[in-house]
Formats: sequence, structure tokens, C-alpha cells
Amino acid sequence: MQKFDVHIIGCGSALPTNRHLPSCQVVDLRDKLLLLDCGEGAQLAWRKTGLSWQKITHIFLTHAHGDHVFGLPGLISTMGLLGRTAPLFVHGPSTLQTFVEFTMAHFCANMDYEVHFEAVDASQHQCIFEDRSMEVWSLPLKHRLPCCGYLIREKPGLPHIRREMIDFYGIPTWAINNIKAGKDWTTPEGETIPHSRLTTPPDRVRSYAYCSDTMPVAEMAEWCQGVDLMYHEATYAEAEADHALKYCHSTARQAAAVAKAANVGRLMLGHFSARYEDEQVLLNEAKEVFENTFLACEGLKTTI
Amino acid sequence: MQKFDVHIIGCGSALPTNRHLPSCQVVDLRDKLLLLDCGEGAQLAWRKTGLSWQKITHIFLTHAHGDHVFGLPGLISTMGLLGRTAPLFVHGPSTLQTFVEFTMAHFCANMDYEVHFEAVDASQHQCIFEDRSMEVWSLPLKHRLPCCGYLIREKPGLPHIRREMIDFYGIPTWAINNIKAGKDWTTPEGETIPHSRLTTPPDRVRSYAYCSDTMPVAEMAEWCQGVDLMYHEATYAEAEADHALKYCHSTARQAAAVAKAANVGRLMLGHFSARYEDEQVLLNEAKEVFENTFLACEGLKTTI
Repeated sequence: MQKFDVHIIGCGSALPTNRHLPSCQVVDLRDKLLLLDCGEGAQLAWRKTGLSWQKITHIFLTHAHGDHVFGLPGLISTMGLLGRTAPLFVHGPSTLQTFVEFTMAHFCANMDYEVHFEAVDASQHQCIFEDRSMEVWSLPLKHRLPCCGYLIREKPGLPHIRREMIDFYGIPTWAINNIKAGKDWTTPEGETIPHSRLTTPPDRVRSYAYCSDTMPVAEMAEWCQGVDLMYHEATYAEAEADHALKYCHSTARQAAAVAKAANVGRLMLGHFSARYEDEQVLLNEAKEVFENTFLACEGLKTTI
Repeated sequence: MQKFDVHIIGCGSALPTNRHLPSCQVVDLRDKLLLLDCGEGAQLAWRKTGLSWQKITHIFLTHAHGDHVFGLPGLISTMGLLGRTAPLFVHGPSTLQTFVEFTMAHFCANMDYEVHFEAVDASQHQCIFEDRSMEVWSLPLKHRLPCCGYLIREKPGLPHIRREMIDFYGIPTWAINNIKAGKDWTTPEGETIPHSRLTTPPDRVRSYAYCSDTMPVAEMAEWCQGVDLMYHEATYAEAEADHALKYCHSTARQAAAVAKAANVGRLMLGHFSARYEDEQVLLNEAKEVFENTFLACEGLKTTI
């Protein structure tokens, strides 16, 4: 299986605590690094992941609240100081465009790399980026301002070659790529060996959904049906459900209900309110609804 | 003696390291807190000082480089979340005005307190702020853009009452404040006791100079003559003197020469380049010129 990891840089909410940094995650998909949100201190905590700055190709921001974006100017500056030359793509609701442009104009002039802002329509569920190995889809969220989560999904890979069949038929190396791509093999004697006998099916397509800062969204059941891992904010416990409603956040139980409706593989909770010294209460409430739940924490690496 | 402490929140330079945060200091003068610069992560490291957010009255920024200001938006937001109502005054070169205004407009609307930006003419040495107990003077620095340090000086206090003389003459409590303010005392028998016999001189006026991001400035010898403590950037060792020149910074030895010319009490070095795993080389080079030198480090509290 190729790499598909999620590293938690920060999973707190707006108020700083000794336990949590503000929101930031890194998705490492086959050594391409995607950043999800970029709270203050992200560049300082980054090095604990052991990942290389230079492999960050895209940053996906969910919304224009400081605890999700105040680390971006420092990160962009530092990559410039470190000699980055590859362009960087920052995606997010258009409400963040002036923030990125202001940062570039006032603090990052004369860098050796370019930063491109790509506006995401936070009201639409659609594919906003793809390359050879993945697609990224927007997930409209319900918060106090335009906000969207992201669904990252591998593209189907090629089938696996059955080594023993290749050896049996004496198939030369040059033919392997054709077979992987779907071709049958014809032996020198004229016998046609069907592609299906020479291969096993490709790896299952894996996916990760990042749902930060939102009230429960019913459509998530359809959009994220069967994802392997869902991160869903769980700012509050049930006792503070009125706060969740007032500030457009979710309780842990609501997050679990979303995960259950979407039949996800696992649910990771985060964006914890500073009021919880111990988030076990959140975990317990969620598990009553969806058992396969765990808590995010700084430094956690989850393999999908 | 009343409180006059300097707390180091961060004393690194632009590149983040595991050892240092970017520039930020707190001056605690009689329980009024002044922030000097506000690098990224300042609000996260703040709590280690044990000081109260609400006592920050003024922030003095030296210049518009990210490692000196990227922590400001988060700090302002967090104080708002924590219910601050007292106005906050942010001083700095006019190049920072749009940064503060942008932050307020895009991320800090609807807070319960006001943030006022006060432009400082970075080319002039002048008093830019005073209250009952202190004066703050700008210190024009030589960097790659408008940049100014700050000199914080106590105002002279009142003389101390000589308790034994008060008792000897039976002077009533209601007269004490007049005597402190300079009045003589006339006994019921008509004898005049001069003020000077009833008091001892006020505490010596103390001062702190913050010189961040600058080449050596000759005028500092005059502007900072005799200050108790000077913080001076020492980004490089002598071996990297060409870098200091190129990027408009100082070597540790140059910082020491400035301190010596100004006859300061003590010199604190900071703004260390990330290349020094151990800053002892900087300390050694400075001490050859000015013995009473020490290194800043995160968490250090220096009493003046």
C-alpha cells in the first residue's frame, strides 16, 4: 500500500491552551504533502512531523477565522527563506483571497517562488483539484461564514502483476506496463492469456474527509459515504449543546451521528473547546453513537 | 524598588528553530505590561510568563518583518475572545498601519475593545509615549526598512519619607503627602523643619533600551547613555560579519561596542541566527569588548 497518512499539527479551537495548537493537519499521500488549515504556530510545530517543507504542494483552508489561518504568513515566509522555488497553491473560500494577497504584497515580496490563490466555492460540493493520484472535493460546511471542508480521495491505481504467472509464461519485462494497463498477452505460440489471469485487482481506493468548524451537515452522509477516515469537529459536549448551536459548531455526539450516517471507517474528533481539561467526555459521548471513534492530538499520525 | 522586569518570550531570528521563538518581549513596569514586538507563537508562549493578558496596555513594534509581527493578529483576537474591554495601543512605523488595520477589519470585527494604531516616525529620536510613571522614546535603527527600537525610562519618583524623623517631630499622617511633594514642615512651636531633613532622595530612575534588527548606530551612545539594561541584536558572530553587513544586522562584537560606548549597565544579546547551535561564541566575542553581557533565552526574566 502506498502512503496515505494524516499528521495532526494542531486540533484545538480558537483559545490557546497548554494542550492544543490551533487547527492544522498534514496529509501525506504518496509523499505529496497537503496542508489542511494553518493555525498560528504551525511552522514551529511542523518539524516534529519529520516531513520536508519542500514537499508541501497545496494548502487547503476551510475559512477565514484566525485559528485556521494565522500560521500561513509565517509558513510562506519561512519556505521562502529556505530557498523554495516550486510554486505553492493555496485553496480556500474567496473570503481568504485578500488575506493571502495582502500577506504576499506586504511580507513576502521578492521571494523565489510563487503563491497562487485558488478560490473555492464553499457552497458547492465539487472536485476542486486533481492530479494523477488524487482528487480533492469541497464539502460545504455550515458555520458563521463561508466554510468548506475537503474530501481527499485516491484515484484508482493499476492492477497488481501476478509474478508467478509472468514467470510461468516467460513474459518479458517490456510487456509488463501494457499488461498493467489492461492488455492481454499473446504467447509466441499464439495463445492469448487474458489480462485477468495475469493480474490481481488494484488496491482499494482510500479517502479522508476533513470537516472542520461546522454544524452537522445532513448531506455529508452522501458526500462522504464510506470514507475510510473522517475528521469531524467536536467542539462541545452535549452539556454545551446550546453553545454548539449558537456558534455553529458540533457536539461530539452530533459528529458521531454524521460519521454513522456516512458509514465511515473511523472517526477522529478534534477542534476541542479550551474548557475541556480532559476530552474523554467527548469521546465517550461520541462512542455511544459511533464506536470506531478516537481523539485527535498533536503529533498523532494516522495511517489510512 | 518598584517592579521593572523584562521577560523574554522569543529571541530567535526569522528562521524557526527548536531552541528559539521569533522576537517578543514583555516589559513589566509597576504591573503595567508593554509588549515589544510580537512574533508568531507569542500568545502561545505567553502563559509561561504567568502574567495577565489584561494588563497589556501598549505594544511597540519595531518594523514590518514577519518574525516581529506575525503573532499580533492571534494575540489581538485572543484578548477579544477573553473579554478584554480596555483599549489597546499599538505603536510602530507607519509601514505597519495597514497590517494592523487589515487584521482588525478582516479578523477582529465586533470585538468588545478598540485597537488604536499610533504611527512612530522611525527616523526621529523622540518621546512617543508617556504616562505618570514612564516615558518611551523611539530609537532610530538602521535596517532594510523603517525600523525603530525603544527606550523605556521611569519618571523620577517621589522622595522617601524618613520614618524616624516623622516620629521624632510627631508629624501627622495627613501631612506626609505634602512633605513627599516637597513641602517643609512647621512644628506647632513654629520651627520649620526643611524637607531635606525629613526625606531621602527618590529611587534612581531606571531604563531599558530595546535595539532589535539593526546595524550598529553611533548615536546610540548618546541616546542610551547610562541605561541600566540594553537588549541589542547580535544575529551573527564575527566570522559572518559580511552577512551582518549584507542584511543590515549586527555581530555580537558590534553590539558590545555599542553597549560600551553607551556605558550601559548590562547588555543582553538576542535575535540569534538559526545557524548557531550554541550561542556561546556570540557571548565570548561580545565579552571581549563589554564584560557585563549575557544571552537572552526564552523564559528569562531580568529585573532592572
